[in-house]
Amino acid sequence: AKDLHHSCQWGYGIRWGDNPTDTGMQRLALSEEDKSVRDWFIQTTKELKCNVTVDQMGNIFAVRPGRRADVPATFIGSHLDTQPTGGRYDGILGVLAGIEVLKTMNDMGLETKGGVGVVNWTNEEGARFPVSMISSGVWAECISLEHAHGLKEVPTVASLPTAASAPETMKSALQKINYLGETPCSYKSSPMAAHFELHIEQGPHLVSAGQRIGVVTAVQAYRWFRLNIIGRDTHTGTTAFEHRADALYAFARMMVRAREVAASKGCLASVGIVEAKPGSVNTVPGLVSFSLDIRGPETELVAKVEEELRADFDAIAAAEGAGIGKPCRVEWTLDFDSPAVIFHQDCIDCVQESADAVVSDAPVADTKSLVRPIMSGAGHDSVFTSKRVPTSMIFIPCKDGLSHHPEEFSTADDCATGVSVILQAVVRYDRK
Amino acid sequence: AKDLHHSCQWGYGIRWGDNPTDTGMQRLALSEEDKSVRDWFIQTTKELKCNVTVDQMGNIFAVRPGRRADVPATFIGSHLDTQPTGGRYDGILGVLAGIEVLKTMNDMGLETKGGVGVVNWTNEEGARFPVSMISSGVWAECISLEHAHGLKEVPTVASLPTAASAPETMKSALQKINYLGETPCSYKSSPMAAHFELHIEQGPHLVSAGQRIGVVTAVQAYRWFRLNIIGRDTHTGTTAFEHRADALYAFARMMVRAREVAASKGCLASVGIVEAKPGSVNTVPGLVSFSLDIRGPETELVAKVEEELRADFDAIAAAEGAGIGKPCRVEWTLDFDSPAVIFHQDCIDCVQESADAVVSDAPVADTKSLVRPIMSGAGHDSVFTSKRVPTSMIFIPCKDGLSHHPEEFSTADDCATGVSVILQAVVRYDRK
Ligand SMILES: NC(=O)NCCC(=O)O
Ligand SMILES: NC(=O)NCCC(=O)O
Repeated sequence: AKDLHHSCQWGYGIRWGDNPTDTGMQRLALSEEDKSVRDWFIQTTKELKCNVTVDQMGNIFAVRPGRRADVPATFIGSHLDTQPTGGRYDGILGVLAGIEVLKTMNDMGLETKGGVGVVNWTNEEGARFPVSMISSGVWAECISLEHAHGLKEVPTVASLPTAASAPETMKSALQKINYLGETPCSYKSSPMAAHFELHIEQGPHLVSAGQRIGVVTAVQAYRWFRLNIIGRDTHTGTTAFEHRADALYAFARMMVRAREVAASKGCLASVGIVEAKPGSVNTVPGLVSFSLDIRGPETELVAKVEEELRADFDAIAAAEGAGIGKPCRVEWTLDFDSPAVIFHQDCIDCVQESADAVVSDAPVADTKSLVRPIMSGAGHDSVFTSKRVPTSMIFIPCKDGLSHHPEEFSTADDCATGVSVILQAVVRYDRK
Repeated sequence: AKDLHHSCQWGYGIRWGDNPTDTGMQRLALSEEDKSVRDWFIQTTKELKCNVTVDQMGNIFAVRPGRRADVPATFIGSHLDTQPTGGRYDGILGVLAGIEVLKTMNDMGLETKGGVGVVNWTNEEGARFPVSMISSGVWAECISLEHAHGLKEVPTVASLPTAASAPETMKSALQKINYLGETPCSYKSSPMAAHFELHIEQGPHLVSAGQRIGVVTAVQAYRWFRLNIIGRDTHTGTTAFEHRADALYAFARMMVRAREVAASKGCLASVGIVEAKPGSVNTVPGLVSFSLDIRGPETELVAKVEEELRADFDAIAAAEGAGIGKPCRVEWTLDFDSPAVIFHQDCIDCVQESADAVVSDAPVADTKSLVRPIMSGAGHDSVFTSKRVPTSMIFIPCKDGLSHHPEEFSTADDCATGVSVILQAVVRYDRK
């Protein structure tokens, strides 16, 4: 926990309380702050006698060798980048837990058959470059290196001091901080026996039930879109509503509709980014661009929400400007598609057994009730590693279920419990 | 008309057709382009033997002396700044008409009792600095110089290449292009006998009725607000709708409601600027700022729309986040208030007589039907001059009633008719 906050010195975000650690984080992927924490990560893992490699997406792999060079390492992985108004736990906990495991193993002189690795994945958040988990996606050969290298940072985040005036691509940003590695980004070049990830739940289930550990069995589906609404600029003071093709008004109706449709199917639909042009008080905006994030427990449900919204958005666009025969148009671009995932039973078993063991001396009658199976609402790099190697995750509770917020918080106790579980899970897996 | 397009060389906007003049304008107030056209304006009016002064708001007054030094000049005024995606007529026509009048008077050797002046008012649009007509407002002593000098440029427009990275204030922008004059900005230091303004209608009434001239008798009321919605940043993938205080969702509902309420009272309500923070695909925005422009034919109607929207927006904010006991809040700031205006009967009469005379040889039976009284939907510097001196305006038709758009257009014929009417109106007023 000391180290956890130590690593947060690079990229303090918003201060929300008086304690030294009462700040959020603003460490966008491949920013100067991200470079500093990466340098620290490499130095620290080297001091722990790891072999460190950096691949073409800037993913950093630190491996503590095992007895047998022919057995690939079992990895603990997560990410050190954050949201623009992020917290101190999302991702950071998972990487720091890995370092803690390495230290403990060194301290105990623990030997493993295969090595034990810690990986820091690049741009997991998708906050600066709008594809989440993109670098584990390239590693899994689910996303092409060319596509990933060419991806541009989002305009809203580009206005932060970390960004240049012209939008950076992932490749230019990797070069700028000197983290464009030479190792090919692939599970073939950086093989793993398995991938475990410790994360805060980011939702309210564990904390509201007073449970200690979530054994993550699955991850819900999601799709990210960029949409443009094309209407017509005109004067706000002289243009009757019937004579407008107001792209922002169409947007407002679409956003209201998106929640209705998603809710009716037990799904979520959210807009995080919106830009209206030209952006003048007395001009009706003729162009609106926005992001749409649709999620649901089943891939088919997300597809259904999309299908219904495509029809509804077309109808909303057609109505706005019909009076002048120049209705709004709406264009969709799919940026990212992550179908629902079910994790590997062997990994789930290792986590379940480890969790049961770790909580077994808790002062309650039924300690097993402190551990529960859970589905992840958020995406994680484990989604992509699961395409290539046995994978699963461990959740700990977080305050109010709040995440992507400066006040994101988990107790030191819960963090320590999580680290104990992941340590045991890795050792159990190695011994299987 | 040649001159009209000549002066457009500084600040070409979006090209929409193949002809050399088929572009819009992007000449934000106090930009480099604005400086160039100002320099041209001063040089041109000096060549026409005018005395030129610049006041503390950068307003430029060019006066062709009359017979009597003790009689203040009758002015023709408008503005050379444009919207970010503006056209070639809004404001520009009015200033260029003034220059055309000066030329014609010189050519004809016409003498007047008082002088004849042309004024270019600064930042009429309110597009860069979000108070429209601010500099005629200071001149009329309706807005304080301190407030105007301290006004910051809007963020959406600040991202245009004309602006520095830190937002400029009006004062710093005036200094930067060397147009912070020494003459106090006041009707006392730059007196006028009267103010006439020629403008495109910016609405559909004249063009759809096939009429040539609008005798503007009044200007509708409007109020500009800046609103903030304060919610809570949170994760889009893990936060149920009931657990959100989604400031952008609240915004969407407010915008939909604003149109309903305004329409029910025969008014307009429009949002031109919106910003959502932090601006990341997978973070529910916790902060939204937007502009709200409410207009209506009567001051009281605008006040009624505001009153109803204040209640409705509070209710919408209260509903969003109620489930977590942390509902959204909404804050209003009034940036600008322009009550309905009725112009001066003497000026209206001069314009009516001049218009009737100019159209009298048109090839229709009832030439008087080509001229009609009209209310202005947009604000103009004449609103503020009318507080201190007799004022009125002349409208000509524009294509589709479209304005604040690159394709804004009036025929050369209609522009020439407008110039003839304003020339006669000024001479008639001088002779009264
Ligand atoms: N865990 C997390 O916040 N990941 C970011 C990707 C997502 O939006 O789910
Ligand atoms: N004429 C004009 O577009 N003026 C700008 C002020 C307004 O929004 O009405």
